[in-house]
Amino acid sequence: MSAAPKEFLDYIDAHKDAFITRLTNAVKIQSVSGDPAYRDHVHEMGRFVQSELEAVGVTTKVVPLGQEVTDGKPVEHDGKPVQLPPVILGKIGEDKNKKTVLIYAHYDVQPALLSDGWSSEPFVLTHDKATDRLVGRGSTDDKGPLVGWINVLEAHKALGIELPVNLRICFEGMEESGSKGLDDFIKAEAGPGKFFDGVDCVCISDNYWLNDVTPCLTYGLRGICYYQVHIEGPEKDLHSGLYGNCVHEPMTDLFQIFSKLVTPQGKITIPGVNELVDELSPGEREIYERMDFSIEDINKAVGAAITLSDNKVDVLMGRMRYPSLSIHGIEGAFSATGEKTVIPAKIIGKFSIRLVPSQTPETIDPLVIEFINSEFAKLNSRCKLKVVPSTGGKPYLADPNHWSFVAAAKATQAVYQKQPDLTREGGSIPVTLTFADALNVNVLLLPMGRGSDGAHSTNEKLDLANFINGTKVLGTYLHEVAKLAK
Amino acid sequence: MSAAPKEFLDYIDAHKDAFITRLTNAVKIQSVSGDPAYRDHVHEMGRFVQSELEAVGVTTKVVPLGQEVTDGKPVEHDGKPVQLPPVILGKIGEDKNKKTVLIYAHYDVQPALLSDGWSSEPFVLTHDKATDRLVGRGSTDDKGPLVGWINVLEAHKALGIELPVNLRICFEGMEESGSKGLDDFIKAEAGPGKFFDGVDCVCISDNYWLNDVTPCLTYGLRGICYYQVHIEGPEKDLHSGLYGNCVHEPMTDLFQIFSKLVTPQGKITIPGVNELVDELSPGEREIYERMDFSIEDINKAVGAAITLSDNKVDVLMGRMRYPSLSIHGIEGAFSATGEKTVIPAKIIGKFSIRLVPSQTPETIDPLVIEFINSEFAKLNSRCKLKVVPSTGGKPYLADPNHWSFVAAAKATQAVYQKQPDLTREGGSIPVTLTFADALNVNVLLLPMGRGSDGAHSTNEKLDLANFINGTKVLGTYLHEVAKLAK
Repeated sequence: MSAAPKEFLDYIDAHKDAFITRLTNAVKIQSVSGDPAYRDHVHEMGRFVQSELEAVGVTTKVVPLGQEVTDGKPVEHDGKPVQLPPVILGKIGEDKNKKTVLIYAHYDVQPALLSDGWSSEPFVLTHDKATDRLVGRGSTDDKGPLVGWINVLEAHKALGIELPVNLRICFEGMEESGSKGLDDFIKAEAGPGKFFDGVDCVCISDNYWLNDVTPCLTYGLRGICYYQVHIEGPEKDLHSGLYGNCVHEPMTDLFQIFSKLVTPQGKITIPGVNELVDELSPGEREIYERMDFSIEDINKAVGAAITLSDNKVDVLMGRMRYPSLSIHGIEGAFSATGEKTVIPAKIIGKFSIRLVPSQTPETIDPLVIEFINSEFAKLNSRCKLKVVPSTGGKPYLADPNHWSFVAAAKATQAVYQKQPDLTREGGSIPVTLTFADALNVNVLLLPMGRGSDGAHSTNEKLDLANFINGTKVLGTYLHEVAKLAK
Repeated sequence: MSAAPKEFLDYIDAHKDAFITRLTNAVKIQSVSGDPAYRDHVHEMGRFVQSELEAVGVTTKVVPLGQEVTDGKPVEHDGKPVQLPPVILGKIGEDKNKKTVLIYAHYDVQPALLSDGWSSEPFVLTHDKATDRLVGRGSTDDKGPLVGWINVLEAHKALGIELPVNLRICFEGMEESGSKGLDDFIKAEAGPGKFFDGVDCVCISDNYWLNDVTPCLTYGLRGICYYQVHIEGPEKDLHSGLYGNCVHEPMTDLFQIFSKLVTPQGKITIPGVNELVDELSPGEREIYERMDFSIEDINKAVGAAITLSDNKVDVLMGRMRYPSLSIHGIEGAFSATGEKTVIPAKIIGKFSIRLVPSQTPETIDPLVIEFINSEFAKLNSRCKLKVVPSTGGKPYLADPNHWSFVAAAKATQAVYQKQPDLTREGGSIPVTLTFADALNVNVLLLPMGRGSDGAHSTNEKLDLANFINGTKVLGTYLHEVAKLAK
């Protein structure tokens, strides 16, 4: 039994074509935030979002975030300063007897050019009838979910159904470019009497199902620590004929040190790092056993049979609830094709660690720096070493038994007739943590699209079924939230 | 007592200015072989060399080497095929009672632009009076030595002194670009009745003293084996958040393997490789103890105190008579500035080994390939590995007691009043091996310039003293050769 009124669900089915048109209009605006040349389109998209929200009964506010700054320098384009896209705020209801739900989405997109290998114009939403997919940049990331929320509100307004919760909206236009300016804004608006005051929970629809058939709710994200290890030998690159076996070589030292960080089986070997991982709680393993997922799914996604284990649970837990360490590359070494007999003089080896609770950058950084320094000391090298950690991000873990998750599970069950998987993501969605920390409430990640959507790739798509059913889930979620006790 | 007639030595001193003018005219021609846009100048330089040789009594022959080909494709410039610079052959004497000496030099140079940081126009030979240096591209590498030989012949002709040996000349114009076409030519002209028939020894003046004060003769060169180690994991680069601790990573495997190749102290740890190094012969260590060289010289040259040892002999032997292994870089990994959280999908790690007698590519390759494959097997990785060796070069070692070396030592002693150091070079001069193998004779490396000349750098120079004294050494060498028994 769905908590959502039947008229609402019928309305969504009946207005499928209009919703596709709305998404088409959204995709048409090339709101690529990563390239200042497209910035006017991002601002245009902000105005589009605002007017759509106003039309469905939302009181909006456009908050400018000022001029864009990179590395301390103002960004310019065509000789003019580049303005950050504004945050679009929205508000419906101030009823003290209702829960207040904050929804987040972003209206900017990744770059896309037909020449990248798209099979249709990326900014023309193309309904592929054979597969019933809506193909276009932003279709799933994140214009589909954003338009989904507008569709939900349109249905309620048209049907005269009162929203069962107070709604707060925060749509940003810089997510694909580090959410510049958003963190400070959220923190500033978190206090009593401010915009986010009174929010009971946050719902973000900006990730994906684990596969293509089973809906999921996401309750965890890994954090990250990134390290740049500088090793300096001679003043300039040397000829290996003249100086090989004559001087200490930074590359030799780097390979010794980096070979001590992680095993080929993915186990981090920096002392103390694994000890900070929370122990498995009773019944936690079953969450992974239940997940609708197979080794074959990963093999297909990466194009090779290279999983660390043949056991699905181990692979899923390796990705979601255990840390990882990846070596990314070396700056300053020979990296071109061909053969060069150089002894690189100054190199920077780069690796990162994905963190899980209760690891934090504050606890991990000293362990990593201490270990690398002590391993380097063992080498008796005359090169110089320096470990530079960058600002990391801590992991996120929500309580999946919170009423917001329960409501989302009920809504998903009602729409899809399927129990959603409870998943954690291997990557990061930084705004999740910002909301959780600043507002001190549960943050639910409620995905609309499927694992195969190809969010940042060519031919990004959203299945029409997910667009329509996902819209129903979003609306039903609000009604389920209203029914549950806080 | 010098074997060279006093008039010869006086003539060299008396014609200093004319010799500087000859070198000035040679440097003026921008015979950069590495850039097809300069190819006409290289051909012009060939004509200059030929006419200078003819003027001093040499019978010359210009041998075209055909069109330049790179990677199987004909090289073109401005829509026209690019011709390789010719080999300039020269001949004086056919006296069966005289020894026949083959001299080699090259008339092409490295690129040079004032904007690279030269303090004077690189193609205008500038006599810096404060330091008495002749600054210009090619001054020391290798137009100085080439002009030196012409000066020697001019002196003999002008004074009416018969050359004490039969002379054969082979000057090439492509040395700085891999000596394209030369190997095949030398091999083809090595048989009975061919140009190189009857040659008793080869003298190459194309390297440098170890330092700035002590002349040297060079009797050895290291060989080289270069390896590209391909490791393949996923089909395309992955996001470390999504796949970290979930799949095998090529970078992790590469760091494990490369950490097993060499110690930070420069010792190669591939089984069998060091066993192929010839044992120290009695008295060999003293050669290095005698060398006029200090740790401080290396520190100055590389700009940092990073020698593998504080013992001069160990450092010199590490460079000259022991092999070395250097890791050069990785193709396919993240190599730019900044931070990227990529799991590189397909990478190529590159390293090379400098070989010494009796190591050869044929004996080393199987050891390296077998070791890497066995180390990779230990990793239990699902990535794929392939080791690709390139065509290596074997090391060269001449007998420093051969009469050609004895003659060069006597000539050096006569001119500089100093016993020359006997050195081996850490790098390679491939034509040395070609001559040694094709003609089966001793090849002497008799340098004219000093260690600080900066052959391939900005402000390349040849000290005037070395130009004049070096010319005397070349001429005296021929007279010393003539005096000794074969």
